[in-house]
Amino acid sequence: MPTLVAKAREGDPRSVARLISLVENGDPALPEVAAALAPYAGRAQVVGLTGSPGVGKSTTTNELVKALRAAGRRVGVLAVDPSSPFTGGAILGDRIRMQEHTTDRGVYIRSMSSRGQLGGLSAATPQAVRVLEGAGCEVILVETVGVGQAEVEVASLADTTLVLLAPGMGDAIQAVKAGVLEIADVFVINKADRPGADATYRDIQGMLGLGERAAGDWRPQVVRATAVRGEGIDDVVAAIEKHRAWLETSGNLTARRERRAAVEVEAIALGTLRARIGDLKEGTALSTLAAAVAAGELDPYAAAEQLIKGL
Amino acid sequence: MPTLVAKAREGDPRSVARLISLVENGDPALPEVAAALAPYAGRAQVVGLTGSPGVGKSTTTNELVKALRAAGRRVGVLAVDPSSPFTGGAILGDRIRMQEHTTDRGVYIRSMSSRGQLGGLSAATPQAVRVLEGAGCEVILVETVGVGQAEVEVASLADTTLVLLAPGMGDAIQAVKAGVLEIADVFVINKADRPGADATYRDIQGMLGLGERAAGDWRPQVVRATAVRGEGIDDVVAAIEKHRAWLETSGNLTARRERRAAVEVEAIALGTLRARIGDLKEGTALSTLAAAVAAGELDPYAAAEQLIKGL
Repeated sequence: MPTLVAKAREGDPRSVARLISLVENGDPALPEVAAALAPYAGRAQVVGLTGSPGVGKSTTTNELVKALRAAGRRVGVLAVDPSSPFTGGAILGDRIRMQEHTTDRGVYIRSMSSRGQLGGLSAATPQAVRVLEGAGCEVILVETVGVGQAEVEVASLADTTLVLLAPGMGDAIQAVKAGVLEIADVFVINKADRPGADATYRDIQGMLGLGERAAGDWRPQVVRATAVRGEGIDDVVAAIEKHRAWLETSGNLTARRERRAAVEVEAIALGTLRARIGDLKEGTALSTLAAAVAAGELDPYAAAEQLIKGL
Repeated sequence: MPTLVAKAREGDPRSVARLISLVENGDPALPEVAAALAPYAGRAQVVGLTGSPGVGKSTTTNELVKALRAAGRRVGVLAVDPSSPFTGGAILGDRIRMQEHTTDRGVYIRSMSSRGQLGGLSAATPQAVRVLEGAGCEVILVETVGVGQAEVEVASLADTTLVLLAPGMGDAIQAVKAGVLEIADVFVINKADRPGADATYRDIQGMLGLGERAAGDWRPQVVRATAVRGEGIDDVVAAIEKHRAWLETSGNLTARRERRAAVEVEAIALGTLRARIGDLKEGTALSTLAAAVAAGELDPYAAAEQLIKGL
């Protein structure tokens, strides 16, 4: 295990791949891996990307990788699919589209789902981020495939969260409904060459104008892009860098990362407790209590209390 | 609280309603209520009803209530909607359809969702069942609205599980996919007057023939009914009673209820632990650990371990 981490530290892609697989599968060696990676925590800027299907997330990610590589940054990409391992099609498509980067040792691209990981994706994603940080990535793009509360949560576990919209999809309204308005640091109006792009831009600016903001608070940036032609990507990169600068000068970077670590620790703790209760099923503690409850000798709350004491 | 339980014991509908609301809302007084109700656990036969939308669950439930009332049994009905409190329309429709029973003190009908309950519906439903048992119900029908893993799980928390199918809906195949084949004690082919009913009957019998069964095991019954005309309902009741008799003579009733109690206790224990970790957020323990993780001084697994020790 120390060898694997050491090789990943040198940027060996196969070692990085194996470590992320350990994370995905909830390998028993994870705590050991996490301990070895801890010192490298927080070295990268983590950028979350979310938005409805068809809005151009993968194309935008691909163009961002190009732009960041052109600026000499080492880049990691995690395409996260919280729903299931069965959407392989879409992910495979994304992977192929990104294959122009596969011979570049400065880019690491990986799709992942949470199979056995204690605490699900809210624990697995930060662990995968740590692996990429350990491997020397300076920017890590976390792209969430699909749309829903889980995706929004994963994307919001970032230093900077990008929400992608496209004109004519009713996305401004959808964004409000899905609660992404609260988590977006940068809005990207993609497909900005299409009719309705200006209206979407105005809608978003209008909604941002309604929110109250204290002096010194971040005002979400709204950027127009046409990723498929590479247009506006420099503006997106500039917005990301501006947000990073604000995070550092305002002291919000540390606050945000501590909040993220709290979510992560909580998810792992709950997963561990769930596993331990599962282990108890193998023994007699739970079945003895259950028999007493079924017989009406004990109520289930009192039984749960006894179960917890035995953990 | 003791007064409320005492009044519910006498069958007062308003007290029963208030107790089930306490269950739904995860009221802090729940452990006290549970303790007061514990002695009456296991007095009713709990019958789960599940099946795809449109298969006729509510009509069948309604007819079963009629038949059971005609036989002089006190009946409780729980219409469970695990997904959300926003499907009020369908539930309201069901309630109205069942209003012919509302003046009958021998029937208690209630729709419920799990809002604040620790452990969700897997804990809330058994608690509501206990309330109805305490109120003297002899048969409790747990009808799950909607379709999905959660519904299947809730329905399987019963002494006897009914799976409803209808001809021409591809339901036999759907049943296999949804995993209901494993949980069904009785299959009801509803709308048996429609074309394709015989084919559905044969499909199910064929699939049941494929499974291996030890001597003395229960062979799921397959019953044809046309609930909207009240046809075949007596056969359904007979199948339910036959299953109950088998449960008792084979010793499976106790085994099944102990398994159910184990699920319930586990769900409550996990919910309690989750709430306690939530309480820790208010304090400084989690934030101190999170700060150490964010700073790279501690890995998240070690932090989770420390968090658990502090519970």
